[in-house]
Amino acid sequence: MSSDFGKYLRIQLFGQSHSEALGVVIDGLPAGIEPDMDRILSRLKRRAPGGSALSSPRKEPDLPEILSGLAGGKTCGAPLCAVFRNKDTRSEDYDELKHIPRPGHADYTAYIKTGGANDIRGGGHFSARLTAPLVFAGALCAQLLEEKEIYIGAHIRSVGSVEDRPFDPVNTTPEALKELQQAPFPVLDRQAGQSMETHILDAAARKDSVGGIVECCVLGLPPGLGEPIFDGLENRISAAVFGIPAVKGIEFGDGFETARSTGSVNNDAFCYEGGRVRTKTNHNGGILGGLASGMPLIFRAAFKPTPSIGLPQDSVDLSTGTNTQLTVKGRHDPCVVPRAVPCVEAATAIALYDLYLGDKR
Amino acid sequence: MSSDFGKYLRIQLFGQSHSEALGVVIDGLPAGIEPDMDRILSRLKRRAPGGSALSSPRKEPDLPEILSGLAGGKTCGAPLCAVFRNKDTRSEDYDELKHIPRPGHADYTAYIKTGGANDIRGGGHFSARLTAPLVFAGALCAQLLEEKEIYIGAHIRSVGSVEDRPFDPVNTTPEALKELQQAPFPVLDRQAGQSMETHILDAAARKDSVGGIVECCVLGLPPGLGEPIFDGLENRISAAVFGIPAVKGIEFGDGFETARSTGSVNNDAFCYEGGRVRTKTNHNGGILGGLASGMPLIFRAAFKPTPSIGLPQDSVDLSTGTNTQLTVKGRHDPCVVPRAVPCVEAATAIALYDLYLGDKR
Amino acid sequence: MSSDFGKYLRIQLFGQSHSEALGVVIDGLPAGIEPDMDRILSRLKRRAPGGSALSSPRKEPDLPEILSGLAGGKTCGAPLCAVFRNKDTRSEDYDELKHIPRPGHADYTAYIKTGGANDIRGGGHFSARLTAPLVFAGALCAQLLEEKEIYIGAHIRSVGSVEDRPFDPVNTTPEALKELQQAPFPVLDRQAGQSMETHILDAAARKDSVGGIVECCVLGLPPGLGEPIFDGLENRISAAVFGIPAVKGIEFGDGFETARSTGSVNNDAFCYEGGRVRTKTNHNGGILGGLASGMPLIFRAAFKPTPSIGLPQDSVDLSTGTNTQLTVKGRHDPCVVPRAVPCVEAATAIALYDLYLGDKR
Amino acid sequence: MSSDFGKYLRIQLFGQSHSEALGVVIDGLPAGIEPDMDRILSRLKRRAPGGSALSSPRKEPDLPEILSGLAGGKTCGAPLCAVFRNKDTRSEDYDELKHIPRPGHADYTAYIKTGGANDIRGGGHFSARLTAPLVFAGALCAQLLEEKEIYIGAHIRSVGSVEDRPFDPVNTTPEALKELQQAPFPVLDRQAGQSMETHILDAAARKDSVGGIVECCVLGLPPGLGEPIFDGLENRISAAVFGIPAVKGIEFGDGFETARSTGSVNNDAFCYEGGRVRTKTNHNGGILGGLASGMPLIFRAAFKPTPSIGLPQDSVDLSTGTNTQLTVKGRHDPCVVPRAVPCVEAATAIALYDLYLGDKR
Repeated sequence: MSSDFGKYLRIQLFGQSHSEALGVVIDGLPAGIEPDMDRILSRLKRRAPGGSALSSPRKEPDLPEILSGLAGGKTCGAPLCAVFRNKDTRSEDYDELKHIPRPGHADYTAYIKTGGANDIRGGGHFSARLTAPLVFAGALCAQLLEEKEIYIGAHIRSVGSVEDRPFDPVNTTPEALKELQQAPFPVLDRQAGQSMETHILDAAARKDSVGGIVECCVLGLPPGLGEPIFDGLENRISAAVFGIPAVKGIEFGDGFETARSTGSVNNDAFCYEGGRVRTKTNHNGGILGGLASGMPLIFRAAFKPTPSIGLPQDSVDLSTGTNTQLTVKGRHDPCVVPRAVPCVEAATAIALYDLYLGDKR
Repeated sequence: MSSDFGKYLRIQLFGQSHSEALGVVIDGLPAGIEPDMDRILSRLKRRAPGGSALSSPRKEPDLPEILSGLAGGKTCGAPLCAVFRNKDTRSEDYDELKHIPRPGHADYTAYIKTGGANDIRGGGHFSARLTAPLVFAGALCAQLLEEKEIYIGAHIRSVGSVEDRPFDPVNTTPEALKELQQAPFPVLDRQAGQSMETHILDAAARKDSVGGIVECCVLGLPPGLGEPIFDGLENRISAAVFGIPAVKGIEFGDGFETARSTGSVNNDAFCYEGGRVRTKTNHNGGILGGLASGMPLIFRAAFKPTPSIGLPQDSVDLSTGTNTQLTVKGRHDPCVVPRAVPCVEAATAIALYDLYLGDKR
Repeated sequence: MSSDFGKYLRIQLFGQSHSEALGVVIDGLPAGIEPDMDRILSRLKRRAPGGSALSSPRKEPDLPEILSGLAGGKTCGAPLCAVFRNKDTRSEDYDELKHIPRPGHADYTAYIKTGGANDIRGGGHFSARLTAPLVFAGALCAQLLEEKEIYIGAHIRSVGSVEDRPFDPVNTTPEALKELQQAPFPVLDRQAGQSMETHILDAAARKDSVGGIVECCVLGLPPGLGEPIFDGLENRISAAVFGIPAVKGIEFGDGFETARSTGSVNNDAFCYEGGRVRTKTNHNGGILGGLASGMPLIFRAAFKPTPSIGLPQDSVDLSTGTNTQLTVKGRHDPCVVPRAVPCVEAATAIALYDLYLGDKR
Repeated sequence: MSSDFGKYLRIQLFGQSHSEALGVVIDGLPAGIEPDMDRILSRLKRRAPGGSALSSPRKEPDLPEILSGLAGGKTCGAPLCAVFRNKDTRSEDYDELKHIPRPGHADYTAYIKTGGANDIRGGGHFSARLTAPLVFAGALCAQLLEEKEIYIGAHIRSVGSVEDRPFDPVNTTPEALKELQQAPFPVLDRQAGQSMETHILDAAARKDSVGGIVECCVLGLPPGLGEPIFDGLENRISAAVFGIPAVKGIEFGDGFETARSTGSVNNDAFCYEGGRVRTKTNHNGGILGGLASGMPLIFRAAFKPTPSIGLPQDSVDLSTGTNTQLTVKGRHDPCVVPRAVPCVEAATAIALYDLYLGDKR
C-alpha cells in the first residue's frame, strides 16, 4: 500500500471507512506555525457528508483531534498527527458486499489484491472518507502557501452536461477564488449552479448518479516552480489528484483541446506588462516544461458518477462463482462533485507546497 | 531537479539536447536478464527523428552504448547505464533564444528557475531528445513485462481533428498491439492514418504545427495490481506520462466522458466468463480504485502542437526588458504525436513494471 | 523532520513525550496477517519504564490502541496506525528547561533548529518514549520475519566496564535468542548480569548514570539479502539503530577490532558443512559486501550514559545569554541499556523486513 | 540494487570494476555553480591506485568525463553525469573466482544474490573502484559546503595497532583540515605516520594485509542541522560511510568509550564563549539528538584488512560443491586505509550536503 505523498512534506494517510479512526501524519512542516483551525474546519465542513439533500445522509462531525506535532498551539517541528473518529458507521450494510462486489467500486480489485483480507465495510481504505484527512492536510498546506501569496480555488465546472463558465485563464483574481471558498455550491455562474443542483436531485430521484468536472486555479506561483521531467507541476498535481476517489481524467490549460489546436494558436506569446513577463493568452494553463510560468495555473479533473446507486446491478458472487444481482444499500452521494471541490483544492495544495519546499532557490 | 522515477525500479535520466551525451541509469533490474537489443533498437528507431518528412530532419543514430550493468551480455544486478552521444547538434541555432524565449517552450521558465544558468541549446534538459533514454528504459521494462504476459501498445488516436478508431475496450488482443508496434505510422484505421499524414504535411507547409492524442492499451495486468490512494495505476501512469514533453492531459477509460455519464451506464457490471471475473463493458478502463481489474487498461494522452514553428511570434527580450518578435530556427517536428507513440508505451512500461516489482503478493 | 523509515515497509513515527499521544503508521504490511498481540505487549513491557528500580518511575501502561489497518483482527492491506496515549506526564518538571538546556540532551539543538518552537516537555519528539511505537512496529516485523525462520535476539553486552559473554559468532541458536527475550535482564552470563545491576544501582545512588553496549544477533537470513553500496545490511541497520536515542556507535562482526587485525586472520574461510556453504569463523559478522552470508549477523550498539542525572551541571540560560547551573528534575533511568534491548531488536527487525520485502528474488 | 543516496541531492552510482565505464549521476545540484576541477582531480588522485608501494599497482588515470549537467562550464540545473572509463583491466585474473569465492569478499554473497549472474571481474559492482565516482560527487558537495564555511577533513587514525593522535575535539581548525588534505599520507603525528607505512609494507611483504581507522572532522555545521530519529547526523553519515567497502564500524564523539563512561563525565556542559553557545568538552562529537551542536563533528570508521591477500586460503568450489584452496591473483592494496581517507570525506560531504539542502530553515 502506498498511502503517502510528498518528498519534502510527507503526508501519510491511514484508516478505513469503518475503522476506529482515520487520519493523517504530516512530517516536514516548518516549526512555529499556528494552524488556522477555522480554515481547516470550514474546509472539512465543505467536504463533510450530511450537509444537504445533494449528499449522503451519513453524519460525521469530521472534527479532527490533533494527537501530536503542536506545542502551545504551534507546530513544534515534530510530525503532526490528526485523527477523525468514525462514529456513524453502519457496517451491517456491507455484509453482502464481501462476496458480491459493487460494480464501479474497488471491492473486487481490493478483494483480489489482499486475498480477501480487505476491509469491505464502507469501502475500507478505498472510501472517499479518506479525503477528510486529505482535506485537513491540504488546508494546512494552503495556509502556508497563502503566506507566500499563493492562492488556490476551485469550482464545479460541470455536472453531467450542465456547464459552469470556465475560469478566466488570464485575469482570475485571488478575491474570486476566496469567494468560491465561501460558497456552499461553488460555481462562477449561479444560474448554472441551480441547473446542476436540479440535475443532481433528478439523478437521486431515479436512484442513479451523475459525474462532473472540477476546475481548479492557482494564483501567485513563483515562475520556475516545479522540476523537470518527472516532477513537473503536471506530474505532481496529477499524482495527488488521482488520489481522490472517482477521478478519471485530468487536463492542464486547454488540455485535450490543445490536441485539436495548432502551434500558432496554442503558443502563448510573451509580453512585458507592468515590468514583468506575462503571456497574452494562457492555453498552457500557467505551465511550460512542467514549470510555473507565472500565469494562473488552471486544470480540470473529471469525476465519474458515484458507483453506488440504488438501482439493481449485475455482479458476481465470488463465494459461489456465479453471476448474481446486487442492490447497493448504504447511504451515498448522487454526485461526488460538490464535495470533491475542497478535495481537489487540498490535493493541489499538498502537491504544490511539497514542490515549494523542495525548490532549491 | 527530479529526473528520476520509480520506487522499486529506479530510472534516472540525464543529459541535455546538446551536451556530450544523454542517458539513463536503471537501478533495480533483476539479474540474469538478456536485454533484447533488437526490440530496444526498433523502439528507438520509431522515436528517432529524421525518419520521414513528418519529423525533424535532425539525424541522430540513437545508438545506445551500455556502459555498465551487464556481464556476459546479461544483467548482473548492478545499475545499467546507457548513453547516447549527441552528434548532429547545431548549437548556433539557439544563440538568440537565451534571451528571447520561444513561446510555448520551457525556455522562459527554465531561465527563471536557474537564474539564467540553464542550457538553452536545443532546449537543454527539457528537450524531447530526453525521450531517447526513456524509450530505452521502457523497452527493457516492456520486455520484462512481456515475460509475465503483460502487453503494451499504443496508436495515434487523433491528429488535429482527424480521428482514428478507438481501441475496443473489451476485446483488444495482444496481436493487435504487436501489429501496431511494427507499423511506421501506428493507427487502427489506415484511412484515418493517411488523413492524419496529410494533415501534418499541411501544417508543415504552413510553417505551423498540430497536436494530437495517443491512446494506449495494456493487456494482461494481474487483477489487483496498483496501490491505493497515491500509488494507483492512474497516479503512477500519469506521473510517468507527463514526463514526456508536450503532454497536457490524460484520461483513463471513458475519462472526461464519464463526467457526462450516469452511474447506471458507467458502472461496468461484473460477470463470470470462462470461469474468470470480467466486466461486460469497460468504461473504467481496466482500473477500479486505482487497481487493475483484469480488463484492458486504456488511457489517452493529449499532446499539444509542437511549440517550435516557423512563423514569426511575439516574445520578449529578457536582456533588454522589451517586447520583440522571434522566428524560431532549428529543425522541428510539425507534429510530435507519431514519435510520441513509443514514448507513451515506454513511460507506461516503466510505471507498470515498477508497480509490478513493488507488488507484495 | 524525518521520522520515517523504510522503502518497502514504511514506518512513520509521530508524537512527543507529553503530547496527547504518540504512535506509528506502518504502510506496506502484507494483508491477512494476524498481529501477535501477546508478543507485541511482552516486548512493549520490556521497554516500558517503571518496571524496576533500574528504570524511571514514570508509569505508562504502554498499551497501544490500533486505530486502523485491521479487519476482523487481521491486516487488511491498509496502513496500520497504533497510538499510545500519554498519561503520567509531569510537564511542570520541564518549565525551566525551555531556556536552560540539559547537557547531553537535544534541548539546545532542537531549540535552535525550531527557533524555539520545539516541545520541551519530556524532551518532546526527541524523547526515548518514541521507542514505544518503534518497538510496536518492530514486534510486528519480527513476527513476519519469524514466519520466514529469521530470528532476532539481543543481550546486554556491557554496562560500564562490566561485560557479559559475547554471542558465539558461529553457533548461536534460535533457542538461545528466544530465551533472552523472556529474560527480565537479558544476559548470557547471569553472574555478569548481577554485577551490572549492582553497577546501575550504584550510579543511581550517586545521582549519576552509566552507559553500556547492546549486542544483537540475527539468525536465518537468506544468503544474499541486502543491497550493494548504500543499502547494505550495515547501512540499513545502522540507519535504523541510530534512531534510538543515546546510540553513539555501531559495529558489525569484529567491528573496530578488525582495524587491528590482518587479512589472514579476519578473512572467514568458506567451507561446505552439511551440504551448504558456511564460514569457519565469522569475523565479518555474517555480512560480506553488505549482503548476508548466511552466518549469524552480529552487531553491537554503544549507548552513552543517560544524560539526565540528578547532579548539578553547568549550562546556559538562552533567555539571558548567561552561564548558569541546572539540576535536572523529572524521572529518569540511571542506565538506558536494559530498556534499549527490545529497541535494538525492533530497529533491526524493521530494517531487515524492509530489505526482505525489497528483495527482487 | 540500491546504489543511490540522498533525498534532496541524489547520487546514483553505476558501473563495475571492469565494465566499459563507471560513474555517477548527481541530481539536485543548484544551478550556476562552476565545479572546481582542480579540487575534484586532487581528491581523485588521493583515492587512485598506483600512487605508491602502499597501494595496488593497477594504474587508472581516474579522469572523469562530464557527459551532462554543465553549460558554459557551470551547472545548468540538469543532472550531472560523470564517467570514468575502465582501462587497465585484467579480467583474466578473475576467471577462477566465479566459482571459488574469495574469503572476506562479496563474491559468494553476490553470486547467491544474483543466481550467478554477478560480474565477478574485479569484484564487479562491489569493487572499491566504485569509490572513484563517490569521491567525484563528494568533492562537488565539499565545494558547495565550503561556500557555507563548512569544512571536512580526515586523517588515518590507526593502521593495525599503530595509532595517530586524535583530533582535538574542541579546538580543531579549518587550517588543520586543509593541511591534511594536501598530505600524501594524512596523519596528525608524522612519526606515527612513518610507523604506519612500515607496518603496511611489512604486511605486504608477508603477502598479508592490515586494517585501520579513519577519523573525520567537520567544522562549521550550523547548529540544529540534521533531522530527528531516522535522519539524524549519525544515521545519515553512517548510511553513507558504510557505502565504502570494508567499513565494519562507525562511532561518533567518544563512541564506544561512552558505554564505559558516566553521565557526569560524558555530558558536555554548555557555556557562553565569545557570545555564542559552546560546550566545554565534546564527548558527544558535535551531535545532540542527531542534530549538530555547533561543536566539531567527529567520527571514526573502522576498516577491515583488505580481504585480497597473496596467501593461500581455504574456500569452496561452488561448481563442484567441494572444499578447495585459493590463492588470490590480481593487484591489491595491503591496506585500504590511506586511499579510504578521501572516500570517508566524500561520503560525509554527500550526507551533509543532502541534509543541508533539506533543512527547512
